[in-house]
Amino acid sequence: MTRPINLGLIGAGRIGRQHAGDIAHRIPGARLLAVADIFEEAAQKAAADFGIPKAYADPRPIFDDPDIEAVIICSSTDTHADFIEQAAEAGKHIFCEKPIHLDLERIDRALAAVEKAGVKLQVGFNRRFDPNFKRAQELVASGAIGEPQLLRITSRDPAPPPIEYIKVSGGIFLDMTIHDFDMARFLIGDEVEEIYAAGGVMVDPAIGEAGDIDTALITLKYRNGVLGAVDNSRQAVYGYDQRVEVFGSEGVVIVGNVKPDTAVLTNIHGEHSAKPVYFFVERYTESYLAEVRAFLQAIREDTTPLVTGEDGRIPVIMGYAAWESYRKNRPVKVKLDG
Amino acid sequence: MTRPINLGLIGAGRIGRQHAGDIAHRIPGARLLAVADIFEEAAQKAAADFGIPKAYADPRPIFDDPDIEAVIICSSTDTHADFIEQAAEAGKHIFCEKPIHLDLERIDRALAAVEKAGVKLQVGFNRRFDPNFKRAQELVASGAIGEPQLLRITSRDPAPPPIEYIKVSGGIFLDMTIHDFDMARFLIGDEVEEIYAAGGVMVDPAIGEAGDIDTALITLKYRNGVLGAVDNSRQAVYGYDQRVEVFGSEGVVIVGNVKPDTAVLTNIHGEHSAKPVYFFVERYTESYLAEVRAFLQAIREDTTPLVTGEDGRIPVIMGYAAWESYRKNRPVKVKLDG
Amino acid sequence: MTRPINLGLIGAGRIGRQHAGDIAHRIPGARLLAVADIFEEAAQKAAADFGIPKAYADPRPIFDDPDIEAVIICSSTDTHADFIEQAAEAGKHIFCEKPIHLDLERIDRALAAVEKAGVKLQVGFNRRFDPNFKRAQELVASGAIGEPQLLRITSRDPAPPPIEYIKVSGGIFLDMTIHDFDMARFLIGDEVEEIYAAGGVMVDPAIGEAGDIDTALITLKYRNGVLGAVDNSRQAVYGYDQRVEVFGSEGVVIVGNVKPDTAVLTNIHGEHSAKPVYFFVERYTESYLAEVRAFLQAIREDTTPLVTGEDGRIPVIMGYAAWESYRKNRPVKVKLDG
Amino acid sequence: MTRPINLGLIGAGRIGRQHAGDIAHRIPGARLLAVADIFEEAAQKAAADFGIPKAYADPRPIFDDPDIEAVIICSSTDTHADFIEQAAEAGKHIFCEKPIHLDLERIDRALAAVEKAGVKLQVGFNRRFDPNFKRAQELVASGAIGEPQLLRITSRDPAPPPIEYIKVSGGIFLDMTIHDFDMARFLIGDEVEEIYAAGGVMVDPAIGEAGDIDTALITLKYRNGVLGAVDNSRQAVYGYDQRVEVFGSEGVVIVGNVKPDTAVLTNIHGEHSAKPVYFFVERYTESYLAEVRAFLQAIREDTTPLVTGEDGRIPVIMGYAAWESYRKNRPVKVKLDG
Repeated sequence: MTRPINLGLIGAGRIGRQHAGDIAHRIPGARLLAVADIFEEAAQKAAADFGIPKAYADPRPIFDDPDIEAVIICSSTDTHADFIEQAAEAGKHIFCEKPIHLDLERIDRALAAVEKAGVKLQVGFNRRFDPNFKRAQELVASGAIGEPQLLRITSRDPAPPPIEYIKVSGGIFLDMTIHDFDMARFLIGDEVEEIYAAGGVMVDPAIGEAGDIDTALITLKYRNGVLGAVDNSRQAVYGYDQRVEVFGSEGVVIVGNVKPDTAVLTNIHGEHSAKPVYFFVERYTESYLAEVRAFLQAIREDTTPLVTGEDGRIPVIMGYAAWESYRKNRPVKVKLDG
Repeated sequence: MTRPINLGLIGAGRIGRQHAGDIAHRIPGARLLAVADIFEEAAQKAAADFGIPKAYADPRPIFDDPDIEAVIICSSTDTHADFIEQAAEAGKHIFCEKPIHLDLERIDRALAAVEKAGVKLQVGFNRRFDPNFKRAQELVASGAIGEPQLLRITSRDPAPPPIEYIKVSGGIFLDMTIHDFDMARFLIGDEVEEIYAAGGVMVDPAIGEAGDIDTALITLKYRNGVLGAVDNSRQAVYGYDQRVEVFGSEGVVIVGNVKPDTAVLTNIHGEHSAKPVYFFVERYTESYLAEVRAFLQAIREDTTPLVTGEDGRIPVIMGYAAWESYRKNRPVKVKLDG
Repeated sequence: MTRPINLGLIGAGRIGRQHAGDIAHRIPGARLLAVADIFEEAAQKAAADFGIPKAYADPRPIFDDPDIEAVIICSSTDTHADFIEQAAEAGKHIFCEKPIHLDLERIDRALAAVEKAGVKLQVGFNRRFDPNFKRAQELVASGAIGEPQLLRITSRDPAPPPIEYIKVSGGIFLDMTIHDFDMARFLIGDEVEEIYAAGGVMVDPAIGEAGDIDTALITLKYRNGVLGAVDNSRQAVYGYDQRVEVFGSEGVVIVGNVKPDTAVLTNIHGEHSAKPVYFFVERYTESYLAEVRAFLQAIREDTTPLVTGEDGRIPVIMGYAAWESYRKNRPVKVKLDG
Repeated sequence: MTRPINLGLIGAGRIGRQHAGDIAHRIPGARLLAVADIFEEAAQKAAADFGIPKAYADPRPIFDDPDIEAVIICSSTDTHADFIEQAAEAGKHIFCEKPIHLDLERIDRALAAVEKAGVKLQVGFNRRFDPNFKRAQELVASGAIGEPQLLRITSRDPAPPPIEYIKVSGGIFLDMTIHDFDMARFLIGDEVEEIYAAGGVMVDPAIGEAGDIDTALITLKYRNGVLGAVDNSRQAVYGYDQRVEVFGSEGVVIVGNVKPDTAVLTNIHGEHSAKPVYFFVERYTESYLAEVRAFLQAIREDTTPLVTGEDGRIPVIMGYAAWESYRKNRPVKVKLDG
């Protein structure tokens, strides 16, 4: 039987509650002993809803609790690095939502703290655990398409976030494309060497006024010669558009969208079916569960997490390279070493 | 806020545990106060796994418990009618797995008890709650295909059940086609008047030796003139094949299978993707949840359940008509009145 | 190089012109030396349009022309048997549109004449040459689905023919289902032993007044135990609906409709694409060409045509059995021997 | 009735023969009076095969023939501009295969000659006439996707051409991507302002040794802000991969590949269907016919051809910009004015 693992949750917003629900209901052998949120009411509500014994405004008691073996960090991005360091010092294993931080130096310090403490850190690039993309990655890794040559990623949100969020998000390349940068590394299994980013403001002028763009097209050149294209939009009116394609010497694998039902109506006007599911909550439900399960398994079996601190760091570097490329309108090298 | 409803579970086998898990984790506002199973260990295991306070071998204490408002009956088919009657006499609302009973007289008595007690009874024809078939039904009911004219249902299991199960199942028409008979009524919204059933033993001779068949093709004639064809097999090696098609004067709606992922590999041999999900647990997961939610809603709002006792009775009549037709090799009238 | 074959065309209506165009433009190594049509103007127009040297009202000169090796009979159904006999007596190979005749005795006499003359006869069941159905048949014959167990054929026209045509057509089972009866034999490679036909008038009361039905659902039982269902409608508002499915012990093969383009629009309302191509001219274009090429190849290589006189005769027998079954509302045996 | 148009064909290679076959068999109201090919045998063979009265090695007699109204130029690329000029001086309308020439000055002189003569010139960008892409363009132009924002074009050949061909082809951007540059202009209806091209040699080192690349990924920036990505490969082992996607403010239109049949086999390993049709002859059959029909219609109705000389010139400019971008590894402006 699997050893029960006691967890602490830091951050009880949407994604924190998603994890809390999964741990409460769908992950036997793990339980949340405490939850903390800067808005104490949110912590208390999560505690009530998911049967968590303790709720705090400050996460300190979680780090101090000897019964807690690992923490799930879902607080706001600017707090991730601090909490990683505190958790590491307390000897807790860490699952942290992406990005680790928008400041690369802070990321490096946090990763150093993790390394020094010898705890495990898994970063929340959940899409690697989506059954569709996972299947694509397995096919590529198994050699089913031969040598990879071209990658295409389409990643479009149904609607943009609030402008206030955009202002502190690091911009499209660090907030949205960062997932695709991770996917690009995951699918090809090699590093991107150079990035060329084009983009514009097509969805909402207010996004441009906030110093960001809402539409982007990024070219990736890998060390192994593979070429990649990522396209992003903050607004696909038909729903969450999340597709990838990897083309190689022996074939191509294409991942399509997920639809809510399989009913097809054909009438005098043509054939009609449902649009894709609305957003990440619907599309990536299973991936949130699977990533936490994988984190717990890494703890139990003492293995390297499937998404490491380095996997959390590199997409941030890529995001900054994309911004530099966009601003200078020329390709920019991705420098992985500090 | 929704009023919490206290439930008792009778039968802790596979489907009972499915409902118990849903009630424990996915249905806020309802809870299981007790579970009973003729195998007391099964009851105790369910109690432990799903946090149910009490576990019994005999369901009597459940009927006697004034705190329990409704029961979920998932015990073996031959006990359904008895437990319905006992629950009705105790004034409990009842959710009962299909079929109510294989003996029509017993069904009638059970339904009379329900009526006399004035409690609600919902029968577990879960497929009505599958999002795919539900969407088809909504399209038909909305007039999107005009007047329905032809119905086709394909319902094939991935593998036959054990012979011992088959022997007490009532045979293919009462065990397997019964779901399709319900679907046929659900999609068209009218009664079948005549049935012609053809069939054979193609999968396993032992099924024939048990007096059953494993492959069937049933023609339905509705009172309103619609024609229907149902095809069944106990063994589709590629997985659970569950499709429907309703053709009408203004169009057609077709429901396809559900697949585990959307990855498509194209290579020198062609285009390849996953086969359908394996069986009912995978295909109908959401429908089991939705049917219990609907039952609770009917209790709360004091409305007629979406699958009534009559809806549970008629497919049994259809199943017997199908057997008579198969044996006599001629169309047989469906007599709905006792 | 292929030996040129000189042909005569009898009947210059729609299907006659289809063959004339194919022979003129797409079949090198064959040419039409003469065309006859009871409406001499139609013959003359075809001659002008397709570069045919001679045009007649009466086909006699075609039978008498020693340079003509084979005839293509596309005249009205009631003339087929006569022309087959005359062509056979003249020693011409014969391609004849379906059905050979509606009178089984006339069919038998015509086939006897063919046999006596030792000429080749191919009947125009063009759907066998459709690349989609051909692929399905090849898969079944290759064992890709193991032992066939269930067959489904959907065959729906976009719109009914004129009532005057219906009156002389032999009715739906001999005019429309006849193609599906042939397809049923082609796909399974065995004979149907028993037929049960249900049907009704749902499209146009005038069809009922003409003594015919416009919607049908036919159950087939094969000698080898396979079960089949054919559904027909004279009116599918979304276009020509021509699909088949063969299910077996190792898998299933499903043939879908052909669409005019692959463009898919997804917007706030869902996903939209074209309906199927309109009718047989669009769907079966290539099959008309392929069947004539196969006929010519059978002549050149002195092999048995891919659709024999017997293949033309049996679906007529099945059509009458279907009518008998429909009228008596019981299954009817198909008696293949005279 | 449509006025017959007399044509002359220059170049009797593969594409010349394609047009000759279409004109002979599928385009009533036009006929080829003469064919010329530097290999006189090829001209004679085409004359024999397609019933063309005259065959020459030199096209001069075609230009001199007063009965010939228009010419179809399918000779080698280096001769296009000369023949356009000679045809224009002779007052013939001109259909010319792409590209007009690899030397922009020669293109300009040829277009000047066409303008001076007042004849019509249509360039052979046949993909505009493919029913799939045409449908996409119609949807975009109709506003079905709102304002276009992102374009994706996938264009991969099944196998590379001979190295000798590659050496004189102008390289991938002028030989292969040129079609996609035209498609990019066709779908968006605006001009590309800047191009960034990445690429590599992944298929065959000999292509690299010939100074070319075989895999490319091109970013397009349009004057109206739209962003585009084109990916090319000289070798897709699964067949001709020709897809486009246009994403806009109100939706997305996606054009998929064309497959030879609709049969789908599902077995224990998954779902299997055919790969796309092999190459341009199969995929674009109808487009070759449609472009010639459109050319004839432009002559008859005295309208501007659907693909003008300017439409032939700009993709060549784009091809050179792509090469410059690839070599300098930076975005390059597209200068449309001489």
